[in-house]
Amino acid sequence: MRFFSDNAAPVHPKIMQAIVDANQVDTAYDGDRLSMQLDARFGELFGCDVAVLWVATGTAANCLALTSLCQPHQGIVCHREAHIEVDECGAPGFYTGGAKLMLVEGEGAKVSPATVTALLGTIRDDVHQVQAAALSITNATEYGLIYTPDEVEALSALCRQHGLGLHMDGARFANAVASLNCHPADLTVRAGIDVLSFGFAKNGGMGAEALVYFNPAHADAARYRRKRAGHLQSKGRFLAAQLLAMLEDGLWLDNARAANAAAQIIAEAAPQRLMHRVQANEIFIRLTAAEAASLRSQGYDFYDWGEGATRLVTSWHHRIEDVKPLAAAIAAL
Amino acid sequence: MRFFSDNAAPVHPKIMQAIVDANQVDTAYDGDRLSMQLDARFGELFGCDVAVLWVATGTAANCLALTSLCQPHQGIVCHREAHIEVDECGAPGFYTGGAKLMLVEGEGAKVSPATVTALLGTIRDDVHQVQAAALSITNATEYGLIYTPDEVEALSALCRQHGLGLHMDGARFANAVASLNCHPADLTVRAGIDVLSFGFAKNGGMGAEALVYFNPAHADAARYRRKRAGHLQSKGRFLAAQLLAMLEDGLWLDNARAANAAAQIIAEAAPQRLMHRVQANEIFIRLTAAEAASLRSQGYDFYDWGEGATRLVTSWHHRIEDVKPLAAAIAAL
Amino acid sequence: MRFFSDNAAPVHPKIMQAIVDANQVDTAYDGDRLSMQLDARFGELFGCDVAVLWVATGTAANCLALTSLCQPHQGIVCHREAHIEVDECGAPGFYTGGAKLMLVEGEGAKVSPATVTALLGTIRDDVHQVQAAALSITNATEYGLIYTPDEVEALSALCRQHGLGLHMDGARFANAVASLNCHPADLTVRAGIDVLSFGFAKNGGMGAEALVYFNPAHADAARYRRKRAGHLQSKGRFLAAQLLAMLEDGLWLDNARAANAAAQIIAEAAPQRLMHRVQANEIFIRLTAAEAASLRSQGYDFYDWGEGATRLVTSWHHRIEDVKPLAAAIAAL
Amino acid sequence: MRFFSDNAAPVHPKIMQAIVDANQVDTAYDGDRLSMQLDARFGELFGCDVAVLWVATGTAANCLALTSLCQPHQGIVCHREAHIEVDECGAPGFYTGGAKLMLVEGEGAKVSPATVTALLGTIRDDVHQVQAAALSITNATEYGLIYTPDEVEALSALCRQHGLGLHMDGARFANAVASLNCHPADLTVRAGIDVLSFGFAKNGGMGAEALVYFNPAHADAARYRRKRAGHLQSKGRFLAAQLLAMLEDGLWLDNARAANAAAQIIAEAAPQRLMHRVQANEIFIRLTAAEAASLRSQGYDFYDWGEGATRLVTSWHHRIEDVKPLAAAIAAL
Repeated sequence: MRFFSDNAAPVHPKIMQAIVDANQVDTAYDGDRLSMQLDARFGELFGCDVAVLWVATGTAANCLALTSLCQPHQGIVCHREAHIEVDECGAPGFYTGGAKLMLVEGEGAKVSPATVTALLGTIRDDVHQVQAAALSITNATEYGLIYTPDEVEALSALCRQHGLGLHMDGARFANAVASLNCHPADLTVRAGIDVLSFGFAKNGGMGAEALVYFNPAHADAARYRRKRAGHLQSKGRFLAAQLLAMLEDGLWLDNARAANAAAQIIAEAAPQRLMHRVQANEIFIRLTAAEAASLRSQGYDFYDWGEGATRLVTSWHHRIEDVKPLAAAIAAL
Repeated sequence: MRFFSDNAAPVHPKIMQAIVDANQVDTAYDGDRLSMQLDARFGELFGCDVAVLWVATGTAANCLALTSLCQPHQGIVCHREAHIEVDECGAPGFYTGGAKLMLVEGEGAKVSPATVTALLGTIRDDVHQVQAAALSITNATEYGLIYTPDEVEALSALCRQHGLGLHMDGARFANAVASLNCHPADLTVRAGIDVLSFGFAKNGGMGAEALVYFNPAHADAARYRRKRAGHLQSKGRFLAAQLLAMLEDGLWLDNARAANAAAQIIAEAAPQRLMHRVQANEIFIRLTAAEAASLRSQGYDFYDWGEGATRLVTSWHHRIEDVKPLAAAIAAL
Repeated sequence: MRFFSDNAAPVHPKIMQAIVDANQVDTAYDGDRLSMQLDARFGELFGCDVAVLWVATGTAANCLALTSLCQPHQGIVCHREAHIEVDECGAPGFYTGGAKLMLVEGEGAKVSPATVTALLGTIRDDVHQVQAAALSITNATEYGLIYTPDEVEALSALCRQHGLGLHMDGARFANAVASLNCHPADLTVRAGIDVLSFGFAKNGGMGAEALVYFNPAHADAARYRRKRAGHLQSKGRFLAAQLLAMLEDGLWLDNARAANAAAQIIAEAAPQRLMHRVQANEIFIRLTAAEAASLRSQGYDFYDWGEGATRLVTSWHHRIEDVKPLAAAIAAL
Repeated sequence: MRFFSDNAAPVHPKIMQAIVDANQVDTAYDGDRLSMQLDARFGELFGCDVAVLWVATGTAANCLALTSLCQPHQGIVCHREAHIEVDECGAPGFYTGGAKLMLVEGEGAKVSPATVTALLGTIRDDVHQVQAAALSITNATEYGLIYTPDEVEALSALCRQHGLGLHMDGARFANAVASLNCHPADLTVRAGIDVLSFGFAKNGGMGAEALVYFNPAHADAARYRRKRAGHLQSKGRFLAAQLLAMLEDGLWLDNARAANAAAQIIAEAAPQRLMHRVQANEIFIRLTAAEAASLRSQGYDFYDWGEGATRLVTSWHHRIEDVKPLAAAIAAL
């Protein structure tokens, strides 16, 4: 059984059905009847006016968002282990025209007001140094930790004070909301987020993410930039179909809850091995090479995270009964 | 019935089935068992070694191809009505880092050795002027005209002489091959094409194009640039599935032949109205506003192409019996 | 005697003296006592608040100006023979991050409201096409023609109507003002210009141009972009010295008047050969190859401007008595 | 007396004289008789074929060099305190089209084979991560430390092993050569440097640096990129004149030796205060705020380098007798 990545999971049957159902003649690009519903449906979810663009990948969503907040000569504060810094092959540099990622540290890839304040304090206010224009945080983080609404609000207060825009990379936003059991608006618009990359591909989707602008006017330029980046798919209705099906009856939350629950089962099996708290669907545990090999020999697949460390990721399709044997196997090591 | 664009057509049932069939746990990105087959399968089709990358859109395919042939300070020769110039919102400028499109004229959006030679003759060989590094042609063209293998070869000979790379935008490459009834290699690798954007989305696909490098080494950088552009989808197996299903039993050619045949029916109904020869699946005809309105009132949908001109595009799903009433309606105007 | 380019002329002695005089210890970059005077001195000249940045070249001035008016996904309207299109090796694409130059025609490289309106009318208002954000005009034009204040005002009215910023490439702005005998503000701020590249290198300077923002707030980002482009010279005082010396006692106008007067002498010698009116310091005349060779054999140097055409450029250092023999030689051909 | 920066120093009289002497009609850009001598003269200095481009600033030299070694999707290893990272407002990102600076630590801003090896070891060999293409080192470093020829050679061996190009930011290259008393080739071409930014502005020049390509073919694209960046000055002869005058009778070395000697005087006055060895013309010393204020009250100007730290920079014009009083004042604190 694979715990390599939530990217490797299958597409949820309801999403696949929505794709099949969308297969009729319709207007190309984003003029179809499905794409036209996105603003309204996401507006209902968040309880405010939003402008929503579908894109195929989280990298595209993140980087389009950053272009809305940052000019080429400016900088974006993020964690040293943020996806945009570590795993997107320099996409932010490409999309923004060379803006600089300005890195802070923090346990579990979390950014804090203190680390951001300290970083900003090192930037001389002169033209020789790149000035920060935005902060990007990831919720859940790359290590599966969660920012609470209060933590987001504290960061957004700092951003307002310094004139920074605030982006949330929500590749696992659903897992964060499910974990907190809060309203999605509490974690975003009400806490001061300007733009959200709302991920679905890791949560049972096929290839669609929602780029959500809480100030709809900011989306105008993003629509051109999406086209210009080759991300305006001609049959966008199949992306819109995924997003709408995800919102239908809270499928996005159900999927995230299932993934989180599966992660808890594993976490509880080896509390002393945990490298980070398990708040979403990622489990980082200490395993020797021999232990990892033993688990693999039992049919489990996962990611080596440096020496002696292992990452397991659960997804919507990992049922409790599937995961228990793994938990037992880890406990038995 | 819609003749607005081949982008608006449904996905072919075999493609949809291939997508459904691909829905299992597999490695993310392009390490899955389907993506791993692409080089071999396209290699068989073209009869040579190739490196193939899936991407979601023709714009992404075209622009990644251009980055392989052109440095930021150089230029790309293309037709004034080329898709990369007119319809991609400046994507080539974005992807290449500001390279210049250098425009030539020509009937039906066709580029000729004479027009390219004339253009190159106007460029002073000094650092004040952008020097051309590549030629990009579209086959079938934006007006549905076809370059023959001989015509491509004449252009590639000119490119070799001037040190230019040669890209083919094949958003409707299938229609061109079907129209010529030639081997796909005759129109590409044997005629000197370096990189081909092999389109499937307009030909019954959902959201997958093949970027085909006839010199596989050139694809290495493109793989990084694809990621960096946010086009490395995490569930790439669903794109690979589309491409493989298209090659299976020549579905890509069957679909193109059907579209071309439907176009011929319409073309034959109104030879005196044709603005361009109909060699593929696009028909440009002269219609007064009243005539266009009349057709629309009969349930036909199409694109106004400036004053007094109309574009109709057929697709794989237009059966002869569907198209004949339109042909009759045009003849009766 | 050289009439090849005003770039080839010597530096005016007063400018050289100002450079020599500036040679003392002072603050680096643009914090020195000379650079600090620029806003005030140019503000007096134009009769309004301005923000002024020195840069070493017209290309840098033009392209920094364009970044103030145009986002990477937008376009800049200019003449097909504008310097930014023809002679800057794609610098606008580099500086703007791939914005598109959108070209209009017009005699003598002049842009008119009619040609701009026509161009704007061809741009579909959708995300597939680059939307124009700015207009750039050159005064005097690349063919030595002049826009009057009324002509500039007509263009700026059009720009306001369409939401375009308006840039003036004034590499030969001094020649235009001298020719019109108007106030420099009449041709710029009062006529709706947003940013002016005010050229001095062709007018007796060594290597300094003034980038003049009539809305000083727009200069803030330009200061960062200047540094980022490597144009913030550490000993900027030597550039500031040139600009201040040019404004002293109207040297810039005296130099331009001398150049214009010399051009008139030549123009009057061969009215029937003129390809364009001579309104500034450039003379385009029809010469056969034999005639050009004859002039060259008499010691005159100039630029071949395509077949049968010749460009002569006068500068501040061409005295009337130097030019008369050339005029006579042309008349005698 | 100012010890704020070598940028604040006057231009050396011989350089100023060379500028005055260059003031005659000559070909524009880099076709003049002075610019045409650069390759030969620098070739003599380094004892090998070189291609040399003048540019006005070190930032432009560095960033043009980087574009020769690195594609937009790649990365450049440098020290966390390198000028290109800290003090150029993101210029490398602008020039390279978004390439990533990959940072290593090291005392006194020195890069070592160990730190580079460690960094390279953290980069996964997959398309999600930016791959390094070049290493850039600064000699003398930002803290005035020197790489010896052996140290450069060790780094270049590592670069060859990993396929990286090697750039030297030589804003204070003259100070390094003077300090080592070695042949300039020993520190560059013989030690494996590909491109050198050879600085003169901090060493008595006005506004000219030499970008030296030890593989002349690499300069071809740089010539276009220089123009495209607005750095091809129309009266380039005045930049060439500075470079040639610097090489004349070893003025560049004389100036650097004078600066270094002055620095030693200060260093010897306060050995216990030194934060870094003084190997070139920069002195970093620990001073309390009160001590700094005391020195300032005695007429000395310098740069606060964070809390309790001070940077003093000597230049060609600081004579020993000028510096001794400062040394005495520091010793007396």
